[in-house]
Amino acid sequence: MRRSDRLVALTNYFLTNPREHTPLPSFTLKYNAAKSSISEDLDIIDKVFKQEGLGFLKRIAGAGGGVTYIPNDTEEKSMKIIDELCHKLEDPNRILPGGYLYMSDILGNPKTIRQIGHIFASTFSDLEIDAVVTVATKGIPLAYAVASFLNVPVVIVRRDPKVTEGSSVSINYVSGSSRKIQTMVLPKRSLKEGANVCIIDDFMKAGGTITGMTSLLEEFNANVQAIGVLVEADDEEDERIVHHYKSLVKITNVDLKHKRIEVRRGNFT
Amino acid sequence: MRRSDRLVALTNYFLTNPREHTPLPSFTLKYNAAKSSISEDLDIIDKVFKQEGLGFLKRIAGAGGGVTYIPNDTEEKSMKIIDELCHKLEDPNRILPGGYLYMSDILGNPKTIRQIGHIFASTFSDLEIDAVVTVATKGIPLAYAVASFLNVPVVIVRRDPKVTEGSSVSINYVSGSSRKIQTMVLPKRSLKEGANVCIIDDFMKAGGTITGMTSLLEEFNANVQAIGVLVEADDEEDERIVHHYKSLVKITNVDLKHKRIEVRRGNFT
Repeated sequence: MRRSDRLVALTNYFLTNPREHTPLPSFTLKYNAAKSSISEDLDIIDKVFKQEGLGFLKRIAGAGGGVTYIPNDTEEKSMKIIDELCHKLEDPNRILPGGYLYMSDILGNPKTIRQIGHIFASTFSDLEIDAVVTVATKGIPLAYAVASFLNVPVVIVRRDPKVTEGSSVSINYVSGSSRKIQTMVLPKRSLKEGANVCIIDDFMKAGGTITGMTSLLEEFNANVQAIGVLVEADDEEDERIVHHYKSLVKITNVDLKHKRIEVRRGNFT
Repeated sequence: MRRSDRLVALTNYFLTNPREHTPLPSFTLKYNAAKSSISEDLDIIDKVFKQEGLGFLKRIAGAGGGVTYIPNDTEEKSMKIIDELCHKLEDPNRILPGGYLYMSDILGNPKTIRQIGHIFASTFSDLEIDAVVTVATKGIPLAYAVASFLNVPVVIVRRDPKVTEGSSVSINYVSGSSRKIQTMVLPKRSLKEGANVCIIDDFMKAGGTITGMTSLLEEFNANVQAIGVLVEADDEEDERIVHHYKSLVKITNVDLKHKRIEVRRGNFT
Protein backbone atom coordinates (compact mmCIF):
# COMPACT_ATOMS: atom_id res chain seq x y z
CA MET A 1 0.00 0.00 0.00
CA ARG A 2 1.29 3.47 -0.84
CA ARG A 3 1.75 6.15 1.82
CA SER A 4 -1.22 8.17 0.60
CA ASP A 5 -3.49 5.12 0.82
CA ARG A 6 -2.11 4.14 4.21
CA LEU A 7 -2.75 7.61 5.61
CA VAL A 8 -6.44 7.36 4.74
CA ALA A 9 -6.75 3.82 6.11
CA LEU A 10 -4.82 4.63 9.30
CA THR A 11 -6.79 7.83 9.94
CA ASN A 12 -10.00 5.82 9.75
CA TYR A 13 -8.53 3.14 11.99
CA PHE A 14 -7.61 5.58 14.76
CA LEU A 15 -10.84 7.57 14.58
CA THR A 16 -12.97 4.43 14.87
CA ASN A 17 -10.77 2.85 17.55
CA PRO A 18 -9.99 5.59 20.07
CA ARG A 19 -8.02 4.62 23.19
CA GLU A 20 -7.18 1.23 21.76
CA HIS A 21 -3.56 0.22 22.08
CA THR A 22 -2.23 -1.24 18.81
CA PRO A 23 1.28 -2.73 18.47
CA LEU A 24 3.19 -1.40 15.45
CA PRO A 25 3.79 -4.84 13.90
CA SER A 26 0.06 -5.19 13.29
CA PHE A 27 0.30 -2.18 10.95
CA THR A 28 3.50 -3.28 9.23
CA LEU A 29 1.88 -6.65 8.51
CA LYS A 30 -1.51 -5.28 7.47
CA TYR A 31 -0.09 -2.67 5.10
CA ASN A 32 3.06 -4.58 4.09
CA ALA A 33 5.23 -1.59 4.99
CA ALA A 34 8.48 -1.02 6.83
CA LYS A 35 8.36 0.02 10.47
CA SER A 36 10.07 3.30 9.58
CA SER A 37 7.37 4.10 6.99
CA ILE A 38 4.56 3.43 9.46
CA SER A 39 6.39 5.54 11.99
CA GLU A 40 6.47 8.46 9.55
CA ASP A 41 2.74 7.96 8.82
CA LEU A 42 2.04 8.21 12.53
CA ASP A 43 4.06 11.46 12.73
CA ILE A 44 1.89 12.99 10.02
CA ILE A 45 -1.39 11.79 11.54
CA ASP A 46 -0.36 12.98 15.00
CA LYS A 47 0.51 16.43 13.65
CA VAL A 48 -2.77 16.86 11.73
CA PHE A 49 -4.90 15.46 14.58
CA LYS A 50 -3.36 18.09 16.87
CA GLN A 51 -3.92 20.86 14.30
CA GLU A 52 -7.56 19.86 13.81
CA GLY A 53 -8.26 19.64 17.55
CA LEU A 54 -8.96 15.90 17.41
CA GLY A 55 -6.37 14.76 19.94
CA PHE A 56 -3.04 13.01 19.54
CA LEU A 57 -1.32 9.66 19.06
CA LYS A 58 0.30 8.33 22.22
CA ARG A 59 3.28 6.18 21.33
CA ILE A 60 5.13 3.71 23.50
CA ALA A 61 8.50 2.51 22.27
CA GLY A 62 10.15 -0.86 22.78
CA ALA A 63 8.81 -4.40 23.08
CA GLY A 64 5.08 -4.37 23.82
CA GLY A 65 5.05 -0.83 22.53
CA GLY A 66 2.59 0.62 20.07
CA VAL A 67 0.26 3.48 19.49
CA THR A 68 -3.05 4.74 20.91
CA TYR A 69 -5.25 7.55 19.65
CA ILE A 70 -6.33 9.78 22.54
CA PRO A 71 -9.25 12.07 21.64
CA ASN A 72 -8.61 15.53 23.02
CA ASP A 73 -10.30 18.78 22.09
CA THR A 74 -8.46 22.06 22.02
CA GLU A 75 -9.95 24.54 24.49
CA GLU A 76 -10.72 26.87 21.60
CA LYS A 77 -12.76 24.19 19.83
CA SER A 78 -14.63 23.22 23.00
CA MET A 79 -15.49 26.84 23.79
CA LYS A 80 -16.78 27.41 20.28
CA ILE A 81 -19.16 24.43 20.60
CA ILE A 82 -20.26 25.49 24.09
CA ASP A 83 -20.95 29.05 22.96
CA GLU A 84 -23.01 27.78 20.03
CA LEU A 85 -25.02 25.67 22.47
CA CYS A 86 -25.61 28.67 24.74
CA HIS A 87 -26.82 30.66 21.78
CA LYS A 88 -29.25 27.93 20.70
CA LEU A 89 -30.62 27.55 24.22
CA GLU A 90 -31.40 31.26 24.53
CA ASP A 91 -34.18 30.96 21.92
CA PRO A 92 -37.39 31.98 23.79
CA ASN A 93 -39.44 29.49 21.74
CA ARG A 94 -37.90 26.81 23.94
CA ILE A 95 -39.89 27.88 26.99
CA LEU A 96 -42.46 25.25 27.98
CA PRO A 97 -45.19 25.49 30.63
CA GLY A 98 -43.63 25.35 34.09
CA GLY A 99 -40.45 27.08 33.00
CA TYR A 100 -38.96 23.95 31.44
CA LEU A 101 -36.91 24.26 28.26
CA TYR A 102 -37.43 22.22 25.11
CA MET A 103 -34.08 20.62 24.28
CA SER A 104 -35.10 17.51 22.30
CA ASP A 105 -33.95 19.04 19.02
CA ILE A 106 -30.42 19.52 20.38
CA LEU A 107 -30.36 16.12 22.08
CA GLY A 108 -31.80 14.55 18.91
CA ASN A 109 -28.93 15.72 16.68
CA PRO A 110 -26.34 12.93 16.52
CA LYS A 111 -23.55 15.22 15.31
CA THR A 112 -24.06 17.75 18.12
CA ILE A 113 -24.22 14.92 20.64
CA ARG A 114 -20.94 13.49 19.37
CA GLN A 115 -19.25 16.89 19.55
CA ILE A 116 -20.38 17.26 23.15
CA GLY A 117 -19.32 13.69 23.91
CA HIS A 118 -15.87 14.51 22.53
CA ILE A 119 -15.57 17.45 24.94
CA PHE A 120 -16.41 15.33 27.99
CA ALA A 121 -14.15 12.49 26.85
CA SER A 122 -11.30 15.00 26.51
CA THR A 123 -11.95 16.45 29.96
CA PHE A 124 -11.98 13.01 31.59
CA SER A 125 -9.11 11.80 29.43
CA ASP A 126 -6.60 11.37 32.26
CA LEU A 127 -8.96 9.50 34.56
CA GLU A 128 -9.23 5.75 34.93
CA ILE A 129 -12.74 4.99 33.67
CA ASP A 130 -14.20 1.51 33.08
CA ALA A 131 -17.78 2.47 32.20
CA VAL A 132 -20.07 5.42 31.59
CA VAL A 133 -23.25 5.37 33.67
CA THR A 134 -26.42 7.28 32.84
CA VAL A 135 -30.10 7.14 33.72
CA ALA A 136 -32.87 6.51 31.19
CA THR A 137 -33.86 8.24 28.94
CA LYS A 138 -32.49 11.58 27.86
CA GLY A 139 -28.91 11.12 28.97
CA ILE A 140 -28.47 7.94 26.93
CA PRO A 141 -27.28 9.40 23.59
CA LEU A 142 -24.71 11.62 25.28
CA ALA A 143 -23.50 8.75 27.45
CA TYR A 144 -22.88 6.67 24.31
CA ALA A 145 -21.01 9.50 22.65
CA VAL A 146 -18.72 9.95 25.67
CA ALA A 147 -18.25 6.19 25.99
CA SER A 148 -17.39 5.75 22.34
CA PHE A 149 -14.51 8.23 22.65
CA LEU A 150 -13.39 6.69 25.96
CA ASN A 151 -13.71 3.18 24.47
CA VAL A 152 -15.72 1.84 27.42
CA PRO A 153 -19.24 0.36 27.74
CA VAL A 154 -22.39 2.22 28.78
CA VAL A 155 -24.48 1.13 31.75
CA ILE A 156 -28.05 2.40 31.93
CA VAL A 157 -29.82 2.90 35.25
CA ARG A 158 -33.58 2.54 34.90
CA ARG A 159 -36.50 3.89 36.85
CA ASP A 160 -38.39 0.61 36.44
CA PRO A 161 -37.03 -2.94 36.38
CA LYS A 162 -37.20 -4.80 33.06
CA VAL A 163 -37.78 -8.52 32.86
CA THR A 164 -35.18 -8.77 30.08
CA GLU A 165 -32.29 -7.74 32.29
CA GLY A 166 -32.36 -10.36 35.04
CA SER A 167 -31.91 -9.77 38.77
CA SER A 168 -31.33 -6.19 39.81
CA VAL A 169 -30.30 -3.95 42.67
CA SER A 170 -32.73 -1.13 43.40
CA ILE A 171 -32.75 1.87 45.71
CA ASN A 172 -35.21 4.58 46.67
CA TYR A 173 -34.11 8.19 46.72
CA VAL A 174 -35.58 11.63 47.19
CA SER A 175 -35.73 13.80 44.10
CA GLY A 176 -33.82 17.02 44.78
CA SER A 177 -36.32 19.50 43.37
CA SER A 178 -39.73 17.81 43.72
CA ARG A 179 -38.92 16.03 47.00
CA LYS A 180 -40.72 12.95 45.73
CA ILE A 181 -39.52 9.44 46.53
CA GLN A 182 -38.35 7.67 43.39
CA THR A 183 -36.80 4.33 42.50
CA MET A 184 -33.69 3.44 40.52
CA VAL A 185 -32.68 0.04 39.30
CA LEU A 186 -29.47 -1.44 37.92
CA PRO A 187 -29.22 -5.06 36.73
CA LYS A 188 -26.60 -7.00 38.69
CA ARG A 189 -24.88 -8.23 35.55
CA SER A 190 -24.42 -4.78 34.08
CA LEU A 191 -21.53 -3.55 36.23
CA LYS A 192 -18.53 -5.30 37.76
CA GLU A 193 -17.77 -4.84 41.47
CA GLY A 194 -15.40 -1.96 42.15
CA ALA A 195 -15.56 -0.44 38.69
CA ASN A 196 -14.37 3.11 38.01
CA VAL A 197 -17.23 5.00 36.43
CA CYS A 198 -18.13 8.37 35.06
CA ILE A 199 -21.74 9.60 35.35
CA ILE A 200 -23.23 11.46 32.39
CA ASP A 201 -26.63 13.18 32.25
CA ASP A 202 -28.32 15.79 30.09
CA PHE A 203 -29.68 18.01 32.84
CA MET A 204 -29.13 18.74 36.53
CA LYS A 205 -31.12 20.95 38.85
CA ALA A 206 -30.65 20.28 42.55
CA GLY A 207 -28.87 17.03 41.73
CA GLY A 208 -31.28 14.44 43.17
CA THR A 209 -31.01 12.10 40.21
CA ILE A 210 -27.24 12.11 40.28
CA THR A 211 -27.19 11.61 44.05
CA GLY A 212 -29.55 8.67 43.53
CA MET A 213 -27.21 7.20 40.94
CA THR A 214 -24.24 7.66 43.26
CA SER A 215 -26.04 5.77 46.05
CA LEU A 216 -27.02 2.98 43.69
CA LEU A 217 -23.43 2.76 42.43
CA GLU A 218 -22.22 2.40 46.03
CA GLU A 219 -24.09 -0.91 46.13
CA PHE A 220 -21.71 -2.06 43.37
CA ASN A 221 -18.71 -0.57 45.21
CA ALA A 222 -18.14 1.57 42.14
CA ASN A 223 -15.83 4.59 42.26
CA VAL A 224 -17.41 7.67 40.72
CA GLN A 225 -14.40 9.31 39.06
CA ALA A 226 -16.28 12.09 37.31
CA ILE A 227 -19.73 13.58 36.75
CA GLY A 228 -20.61 15.42 33.55
CA VAL A 229 -23.89 17.20 32.83
CA LEU A 230 -24.73 19.00 29.63
CA VAL A 231 -26.98 21.65 31.17
CA GLU A 232 -27.29 22.74 34.76
CA ALA A 233 -30.03 24.97 36.10
CA ASP A 234 -28.77 27.62 38.46
CA ASP A 235 -30.34 26.55 41.71
CA GLU A 236 -29.97 28.09 45.13
CA GLU A 237 -26.47 27.04 46.10
CA ASP A 238 -27.53 25.60 49.45
CA GLU A 239 -30.09 23.36 47.71
CA ARG A 240 -27.50 21.82 45.45
CA ILE A 241 -26.57 18.38 46.76
CA VAL A 242 -23.97 17.48 44.15
CA HIS A 243 -20.77 19.48 44.15
CA HIS A 244 -18.09 17.81 42.08
CA TYR A 245 -19.31 17.88 38.50
CA LYS A 246 -18.56 19.46 35.15
CA SER A 247 -21.32 21.29 33.27
CA LEU A 248 -21.01 22.72 29.78
CA VAL A 249 -23.92 25.15 30.00
CA LYS A 250 -25.68 26.91 32.86
CA ILE A 251 -29.21 28.29 32.65
CA THR A 252 -29.17 31.19 35.03
CA ASN A 253 -32.69 32.51 34.54
CA VAL A 254 -35.92 31.65 32.74
CA ASP A 255 -38.13 34.75 32.71
CA LEU A 256 -41.59 33.48 31.79
CA LYS A 257 -43.14 36.95 31.78
CA HIS A 258 -40.72 38.53 29.33
CA LYS A 259 -39.99 35.26 27.53
CA ARG A 260 -36.28 35.54 28.12
CA ILE A 261 -33.76 32.81 28.85
CA GLU A 262 -30.35 33.59 30.27
CA VAL A 263 -27.66 31.06 29.49
CA ARG A 264 -23.93 31.07 30.06
CA ARG A 265 -20.99 28.70 30.03
CA GLY A 266 -21.05 26.10 32.80
CA ASN A 267 -18.28 25.36 35.29
CA PHE A 268 -16.44 23.46 32.57
CA THR A 269 -13.90 26.19 31.93
CA MET B 1 -0.98 22.07 3.39
CA ARG B 2 0.84 19.11 1.88
CA ARG B 3 -1.04 16.20 0.28
CA SER B 4 -0.20 13.84 3.13
CA ASP B 5 -1.60 16.30 5.68
CA ARG B 6 -4.68 17.01 3.56
CA LEU B 7 -5.47 13.30 3.25
CA VAL B 8 -5.61 12.94 7.03
CA ALA B 9 -7.71 16.10 7.46
CA LEU B 10 -10.08 15.21 4.60
CA THR B 11 -10.54 11.62 5.79
CA ASN B 12 -11.56 12.94 9.19
CA TYR B 13 -13.87 15.49 7.57
CA PHE B 14 -15.75 12.89 5.55
CA LEU B 15 -15.99 10.34 8.35
CA THR B 16 -17.44 12.91 10.77
CA ASN B 17 -19.75 14.47 8.16
CA PRO B 18 -21.38 11.59 6.30
CA ARG B 19 -24.03 12.43 3.68
CA GLU B 20 -23.15 16.11 3.81
CA HIS B 21 -22.74 17.77 0.44
CA THR B 22 -19.61 19.95 0.35
CA PRO B 23 -18.70 22.14 -2.66
CA LEU B 24 -15.10 21.70 -3.82
CA PRO B 25 -14.17 25.41 -3.41
CA SER B 26 -14.60 25.08 0.35
CA PHE B 27 -11.73 22.58 0.33
CA THR B 28 -9.50 24.55 -2.04
CA LEU B 29 -9.91 27.58 0.22
CA LYS B 30 -9.51 25.73 3.50
CA TYR B 31 -6.37 23.85 2.46
CA ASN B 32 -5.03 26.49 0.05
CA ALA B 33 -4.73 23.91 -2.71
CA ALA B 34 -5.53 23.74 -6.41
CA LYS B 35 -8.78 22.15 -7.50
CA SER B 36 -6.84 19.46 -9.36
CA SER B 37 -4.91 18.54 -6.20
CA ILE B 38 -8.10 18.25 -4.14
CA SER B 39 -9.60 16.18 -6.91
CA GLU B 40 -6.68 13.74 -6.73
CA ASP B 41 -7.03 13.60 -2.93
CA LEU B 42 -10.67 12.63 -3.36
CA ASP B 43 -9.71 9.87 -5.82
CA ILE B 44 -7.37 8.38 -3.24
CA ILE B 45 -9.89 8.63 -0.39
CA ASP B 46 -12.67 7.16 -2.51
CA LYS B 47 -10.48 4.20 -3.49
CA VAL B 48 -9.39 3.43 0.10
CA PHE B 49 -12.91 3.91 1.52
CA LYS B 50 -14.16 1.32 -0.99
CA GLN B 51 -11.32 -1.07 -0.15
CA GLU B 52 -11.95 -0.76 3.59
CA GLY B 53 -15.72 -1.27 3.21
CA LEU B 54 -16.51 2.23 4.49
CA GLY B 55 -18.50 3.47 1.51
CA PHE B 56 -17.62 5.89 -1.27
CA LEU B 57 -17.40 9.56 -2.25
CA LYS B 58 -20.26 10.68 -4.47
CA ARG B 59 -19.09 13.49 -6.71
CA ILE B 60 -21.19 15.91 -8.71
CA ALA B 61 -19.42 17.94 -11.38
CA GLY B 62 -20.17 21.46 -12.56
CA ALA B 63 -21.52 24.55 -10.84
CA GLY B 64 -23.14 23.67 -7.53
CA GLY B 65 -21.21 20.43 -7.66
CA GLY B 66 -19.19 18.93 -4.88
CA VAL B 67 -18.66 15.78 -2.92
CA THR B 68 -20.59 13.69 -0.38
CA TYR B 69 -19.39 10.71 1.63
CA ILE B 70 -21.96 7.89 1.47
CA PRO B 71 -21.38 5.24 4.16
CA ASN B 72 -21.82 1.81 2.63
CA ASP B 73 -20.70 -1.55 3.99
CA THR B 74 -19.53 -4.33 1.76
CA GLU B 75 -21.73 -7.42 2.09
CA GLU B 76 -18.72 -9.38 3.28
CA LYS B 77 -18.10 -6.93 6.13
CA SER B 78 -21.77 -6.84 7.16
CA MET B 79 -22.01 -10.63 7.19
CA LYS B 80 -18.89 -10.92 9.32
CA ILE B 81 -20.39 -8.56 11.92
CA ILE B 82 -23.76 -10.35 11.83
CA ASP B 83 -22.14 -13.77 12.25
CA GLU B 84 -20.14 -12.51 15.23
CA LEU B 85 -23.39 -11.23 16.75
CA CYS B 86 -25.08 -14.60 16.20
CA HIS B 87 -22.17 -16.32 17.88
CA LYS B 88 -22.31 -14.00 20.91
CA LEU B 89 -26.07 -14.46 21.27
CA GLU B 90 -25.80 -18.26 21.35
CA ASP B 91 -24.08 -18.13 24.75
CA PRO B 92 -26.45 -20.04 27.10
CA ASN B 93 -25.53 -17.74 30.01
CA ARG B 94 -27.78 -15.17 28.34
CA ILE B 95 -30.95 -17.07 29.20
CA LEU B 96 -33.06 -15.21 31.75
CA PRO B 97 -36.20 -16.40 33.54
CA GLY B 98 -39.13 -16.48 31.12
CA GLY B 99 -36.93 -17.33 28.13
CA TYR B 100 -35.71 -13.76 27.65
CA LEU B 101 -32.14 -13.15 26.58
CA TYR B 102 -29.70 -10.82 28.27
CA MET B 103 -28.39 -8.44 25.57
CA SER B 104 -27.40 -5.36 27.58
CA ASP B 105 -23.70 -6.09 27.20
CA ILE B 106 -24.00 -6.06 23.40
CA LEU B 107 -26.29 -3.01 23.38
CA GLY B 108 -23.97 -1.30 25.87
CA ASN B 109 -20.90 -1.49 23.62
CA PRO B 110 -20.66 1.75 21.64
CA LYS B 111 -18.35 0.27 19.00
CA THR B 112 -20.63 -2.70 18.29
CA ILE B 113 -23.63 -0.38 18.16
CA ARG B 114 -21.88 1.86 15.62
CA GLN B 115 -20.94 -1.13 13.47
CA ILE B 116 -24.57 -2.27 13.46
CA GLY B 117 -25.74 1.29 12.78
CA HIS B 118 -23.40 1.41 9.80
CA ILE B 119 -25.00 -1.74 8.37
CA PHE B 120 -28.54 -0.33 8.63
CA ALA B 121 -27.47 3.05 7.24
CA SER B 122 -25.91 1.24 4.27
CA THR B 123 -29.05 -0.81 3.67
CA PHE B 124 -31.30 2.26 3.78
CA SER B 125 -28.78 4.34 1.85
CA ASP B 126 -30.91 4.83 -1.27
CA LEU B 127 -34.08 5.80 0.61
CA GLU B 128 -35.24 9.33 1.32
CA ILE B 129 -35.09 9.54 5.12
CA ASP B 130 -35.60 12.71 7.20
CA ALA B 131 -35.47 11.19 10.68
CA VAL B 132 -34.87 7.97 12.58
CA VAL B 133 -37.65 7.05 15.00
CA THR B 134 -37.28 4.69 17.95
CA VAL B 135 -39.06 3.95 21.21
CA ALA B 136 -37.49 4.38 24.64
CA THR B 137 -35.28 2.83 25.95
CA LYS B 138 -33.22 0.06 24.44
CA GLY B 139 -33.46 1.08 20.81
CA ILE B 140 -32.06 4.55 21.46
CA PRO B 141 -28.31 3.88 21.07
CA LEU B 142 -28.81 1.99 17.81
CA ALA B 143 -31.15 4.69 16.49
CA TYR B 144 -28.44 7.31 17.11
CA ALA B 145 -25.82 5.21 15.39
CA VAL B 146 -28.00 4.76 12.30
CA ALA B 147 -28.95 8.45 12.33
CA SER B 148 -25.37 9.61 12.63
CA PHE B 149 -24.43 7.74 9.41
CA LEU B 150 -27.60 8.95 7.65
CA ASN B 151 -26.99 12.50 8.92
CA VAL B 152 -30.56 12.95 10.20
CA PRO B 153 -32.03 13.61 13.66
CA VAL B 154 -33.44 11.02 16.05
CA VAL B 155 -37.00 11.19 17.36
CA ILE B 156 -37.82 9.21 20.49
CA VAL B 157 -41.30 7.86 21.15
CA ARG B 158 -41.98 7.49 24.87
CA ARG B 159 -44.30 5.31 26.87
CA ASP B 160 -45.05 8.15 29.27
CA PRO B 161 -45.36 11.88 28.54
CA LYS B 162 -42.63 14.15 29.93
CA VAL B 163 -43.33 17.66 31.12
CA THR B 164 -40.12 18.86 29.49
CA GLU B 165 -41.27 18.10 25.96
CA GLY B 166 -44.42 20.20 25.64
CA SER B 167 -47.71 19.14 24.08
CA SER B 168 -47.81 15.64 22.68
CA VAL B 169 -49.83 13.24 20.56
CA SER B 170 -50.57 9.91 22.21
CA ILE B 171 -52.14 6.65 21.11
CA ASN B 172 -53.13 3.39 22.75
CA TYR B 173 -52.16 0.12 21.13
CA VAL B 174 -52.29 -3.58 21.88
CA SER B 175 -48.96 -5.23 22.55
CA GLY B 176 -48.45 -8.07 20.06
CA SER B 177 -47.23 -10.74 22.44
CA SER B 178 -48.77 -9.87 25.83
CA ARG B 179 -52.04 -8.50 24.40
CA LYS B 180 -51.92 -5.68 26.96
CA ILE B 181 -53.09 -2.17 26.14
CA GLN B 182 -50.18 0.26 26.18
CA THR B 183 -49.62 3.94 25.48
CA MET B 184 -47.15 5.74 23.24
CA VAL B 185 -46.43 9.43 23.15
CA LEU B 186 -44.62 11.71 20.72
CA PRO B 187 -44.15 15.45 21.37
CA LYS B 188 -45.76 17.55 18.64
CA ARG B 189 -42.59 19.56 18.09
CA SER B 190 -40.38 16.56 17.55
CA LEU B 191 -41.46 15.62 14.02
CA LYS B 192 -42.50 17.70 11.01
CA GLU B 193 -45.72 16.81 9.17
CA GLY B 194 -45.20 14.41 6.29
CA ALA B 195 -41.64 13.44 7.18
CA ASN B 196 -39.99 10.36 5.71
CA VAL B 197 -38.83 8.20 8.57
CA CYS B 198 -37.09 4.96 9.31
CA ILE B 199 -37.99 3.00 12.45
CA ILE B 200 -35.20 1.35 14.42
CA ASP B 201 -35.58 -0.98 17.40
CA ASP B 202 -33.44 -3.49 19.22
CA PHE B 203 -35.93 -6.35 19.39
CA MET B 204 -39.13 -7.51 17.73
CA LYS B 205 -41.38 -10.40 18.61
CA ALA B 206 -44.90 -10.22 17.21
CA GLY B 207 -44.32 -6.59 16.26
CA GLY B 208 -46.83 -4.81 18.53
CA THR B 209 -44.42 -2.05 19.47
CA ILE B 210 -43.55 -1.30 15.87
CA THR B 211 -47.21 -1.38 14.83
CA GLY B 212 -47.90 1.07 17.67
CA MET B 213 -45.15 3.36 16.42
CA THR B 214 -46.51 3.16 12.88
CA SER B 215 -50.00 4.18 14.08
CA LEU B 216 -48.56 7.05 16.09
CA LEU B 217 -46.52 8.18 13.09
CA GLU B 218 -49.70 8.22 10.98
CA GLU B 219 -50.92 11.04 13.23
CA PHE B 220 -47.95 13.04 11.93
CA ASN B 221 -48.63 11.92 8.33
CA ALA B 222 -45.16 10.44 8.35
CA ASN B 223 -44.08 7.98 5.67
CA VAL B 224 -42.39 4.93 7.13
CA GLN B 225 -39.73 4.19 4.51
CA ALA B 226 -37.99 1.40 6.35
CA ILE B 227 -38.02 -0.65 9.55
CA GLY B 228 -34.84 -2.11 11.01
CA VAL B 229 -34.61 -4.39 14.03
CA LEU B 230 -31.43 -5.82 15.47
CA VAL B 231 -32.93 -9.07 16.76
CA GLU B 232 -36.19 -10.73 15.86
CA ALA B 233 -37.69 -13.64 17.74
CA ASP B 234 -39.05 -16.31 15.47
CA ASP B 235 -42.76 -16.11 16.21
CA GLU B 236 -45.57 -18.06 14.67
CA GLU B 237 -45.81 -16.49 11.22
CA ASP B 238 -49.55 -15.82 11.49
CA GLU B 239 -49.02 -13.90 14.74
CA ARG B 240 -46.51 -11.52 13.17
CA ILE B 241 -48.23 -8.23 12.44
CA VAL B 242 -45.29 -6.41 10.87
CA HIS B 243 -44.09 -7.69 7.52
CA HIS B 244 -41.79 -5.23 5.83
CA TYR B 245 -38.70 -5.00 7.99
CA LYS B 246 -35.02 -5.87 7.99
CA SER B 247 -33.56 -7.90 10.85
CA LEU B 248 -29.90 -8.69 11.33
CA VAL B 249 -30.34 -11.65 13.65
CA LYS B 250 -33.15 -14.15 14.24
CA ILE B 251 -33.55 -16.15 17.42
CA THR B 252 -35.21 -19.34 16.25
CA ASN B 253 -35.36 -21.24 19.52
CA VAL B 254 -34.63 -20.79 23.22
CA ASP B 255 -34.53 -24.22 24.85
CA LEU B 256 -34.79 -23.57 28.58
CA LYS B 257 -34.49 -27.24 29.51
CA HIS B 258 -31.23 -27.90 27.68
CA LYS B 259 -30.00 -24.32 28.01
CA ARG B 260 -29.56 -23.92 24.28
CA ILE B 261 -30.18 -20.89 22.11
CA GLU B 262 -30.52 -21.17 18.36
CA VAL B 263 -29.61 -18.05 16.43
CA ARG B 264 -29.20 -17.40 12.74
CA ARG B 265 -28.92 -14.50 10.33
CA GLY B 266 -32.09 -12.43 10.00
CA ASN B 267 -33.90 -11.54 6.77
CA PHE B 268 -31.24 -8.91 6.11
CA THR B 269 -29.42 -10.98 3.48
